[in-house]
Amino acid sequence: MDVEKLFHMAGGTGPTSYARNSSLQKKASDTVKHITLEALQQLYLEIDPKTINIADLGCSSGPNTLAIIKDFVQTVEMTSREILQNPAPEFHFYLNDLPTNDFNSVFKALPDFHRQLRNERGGGSSPSVYIAGYPGSFYGRLFPNNSLHFIHSSNSLHWLSKVPPTLYNEMGESINKGNIYISESSPSAVSKAYFKQFQEDFTLFLRSRSEELVVGGRMVLILLGRIGPDHVDRGNSFFWELLSRSLAILVSQGEIEKEKLVAYHAHFYAPSKEEIEGEVGREGSFKLDQLDMFQVERQGHDRGESYGSAVARTVRAIQESTIIHHFGIGEGVLDNLFEIYGRLVDEEMAKEEIKPLTFVLLLRKL
Amino acid sequence: MDVEKLFHMAGGTGPTSYARNSSLQKKASDTVKHITLEALQQLYLEIDPKTINIADLGCSSGPNTLAIIKDFVQTVEMTSREILQNPAPEFHFYLNDLPTNDFNSVFKALPDFHRQLRNERGGGSSPSVYIAGYPGSFYGRLFPNNSLHFIHSSNSLHWLSKVPPTLYNEMGESINKGNIYISESSPSAVSKAYFKQFQEDFTLFLRSRSEELVVGGRMVLILLGRIGPDHVDRGNSFFWELLSRSLAILVSQGEIEKEKLVAYHAHFYAPSKEEIEGEVGREGSFKLDQLDMFQVERQGHDRGESYGSAVARTVRAIQESTIIHHFGIGEGVLDNLFEIYGRLVDEEMAKEEIKPLTFVLLLRKL
Repeated sequence: MDVEKLFHMAGGTGPTSYARNSSLQKKASDTVKHITLEALQQLYLEIDPKTINIADLGCSSGPNTLAIIKDFVQTVEMTSREILQNPAPEFHFYLNDLPTNDFNSVFKALPDFHRQLRNERGGGSSPSVYIAGYPGSFYGRLFPNNSLHFIHSSNSLHWLSKVPPTLYNEMGESINKGNIYISESSPSAVSKAYFKQFQEDFTLFLRSRSEELVVGGRMVLILLGRIGPDHVDRGNSFFWELLSRSLAILVSQGEIEKEKLVAYHAHFYAPSKEEIEGEVGREGSFKLDQLDMFQVERQGHDRGESYGSAVARTVRAIQESTIIHHFGIGEGVLDNLFEIYGRLVDEEMAKEEIKPLTFVLLLRKL
Repeated sequence: MDVEKLFHMAGGTGPTSYARNSSLQKKASDTVKHITLEALQQLYLEIDPKTINIADLGCSSGPNTLAIIKDFVQTVEMTSREILQNPAPEFHFYLNDLPTNDFNSVFKALPDFHRQLRNERGGGSSPSVYIAGYPGSFYGRLFPNNSLHFIHSSNSLHWLSKVPPTLYNEMGESINKGNIYISESSPSAVSKAYFKQFQEDFTLFLRSRSEELVVGGRMVLILLGRIGPDHVDRGNSFFWELLSRSLAILVSQGEIEKEKLVAYHAHFYAPSKEEIEGEVGREGSFKLDQLDMFQVERQGHDRGESYGSAVARTVRAIQESTIIHHFGIGEGVLDNLFEIYGRLVDEEMAKEEIKPLTFVLLLRKL
């Protein structure tokens, strides 16, 4: 599967779009917003550039994309005014996601966004905010040398560049039969394959960003992770386990082929603290100023629905592009799949809570 | 009509898309390509930056968008190798169009475009080419201060920021009844209203670009124009005259309301050489190094169709977004409109050729 061409959050603004089903991601991002904004403030005070260049990697499309820009502008303007007593810099935002992301939706929202920015300042002069879309994989270079001051990436770096190729033997058969991610019944070669892919990808990510950032530049990375050395947990791997089971139920219903399920894998990895620290140290261009783990609290039941249904909607908005491509199924079977999935999540939650674990990393370019 | 929200080339890649109906625009751009590339080469030799920042304003979507980037890269690389004997710089391309442009189509083509760039170099190291989308109106600031070396804009600047408001009297009635652009029967206040709007828009364009360009930076602007002081000609205004007539036929067929036709106007202006020189001089930040006029040769009949039909397809890809919005008509009536239009163009061409006139301007930031 060519992730660059296929993987994308569900576009548009309809009921199953990512735009309308990304409140869990927003919650994670909001929980650590103070860390992000403090890092930005520190960076700004140290470097004090005339134009501040900020990239958001894996920006996706929807309300989260532009909300964070507003926070960045407010923080820097406030710092200019109250601490530096200088005019605010110009802002240059670089929004990145894969080329299949729905950038059109983001761009169409820009005229109103600029109007809002102006109005909220109550008649003062407008901030100079320039916003660009940069399509491409962040596992590789995206921006010119030394062109960025600050990088933010929320809920993206747990996505690998590809399904680890060593998950398949010479005959092209999966060594992780029936599981779509590392699970209790996976042989140890499966965890190794995933870890190796994470190491390659994360190192390439760090090296690429290190060329793009100025010295002293900061990165705040928010990604799913796991609590200890064991890969199988109720934090993140269990959500995949339940998706495996849901797909297996579709096989038993004759809706999808067993061979297709056996060949399907998540291009995902939840690293541990030690694994992250190991890669940052080995790569060598960054100092890890902070690494915290937190749990995103369970959502309120906004729409009078169960937690499982809310999770199912979120996971669907993320996964449906690859599921449709791999299994070749239509809307009806997808509805069925995520109804089953939501039910399984609710059943498990009744036994014991499943809490997604998230890391926030603050890195400084040496 | 809010041009920023409504006006855009027909998106996607279907039979009526701009992507498939923009060969006339490509022809204009190709005719003057040597001027564009020579200007880029001169600029590069003078400034020799490590990263060269190039903006394309009104990039639209389709094959023309990326084709020009390839020419730019080749020219600069060749100049580095053969004249400067230096390594090539990094390339930073800023693609601009209105927020409703189909950027998704452009972005989806990027992975293959990068692959092609690599392959064509026959195993040599890849050029570093970073491509971003910058949605927004070029009648205002788009990029940070002093951030660009070279600006290119082809077939865009004849579009005004809006229909001139002075075309309507205090009661909101048009003073140019039944005409959608300046025509023989238009009162002189109509030409004045259009000229005034052009002056405002073009000056704002020059002022905005002057803040964005470094000193010595170049702009190549390709836009439709007219040959002398008379606004009514067979070069450009006559194409609008024929569109007026086609719409009038739809009124007589009961397909659209007369009131709607009376209220409809093109947000277009074809300036003369003197008018362009006047604005550049008054604005004062640029030196006009070159200003040439040329005629785009009549198209070959690629698809075994008449010239009129080819023109109708092109005009439709450009105009249908505003026509649909204004008249509220569907696909069938649109087909009918542009069939009539194509026929009228053929009829006129049988009498005497109608040749669109195009200007190419080369400007240098003082």
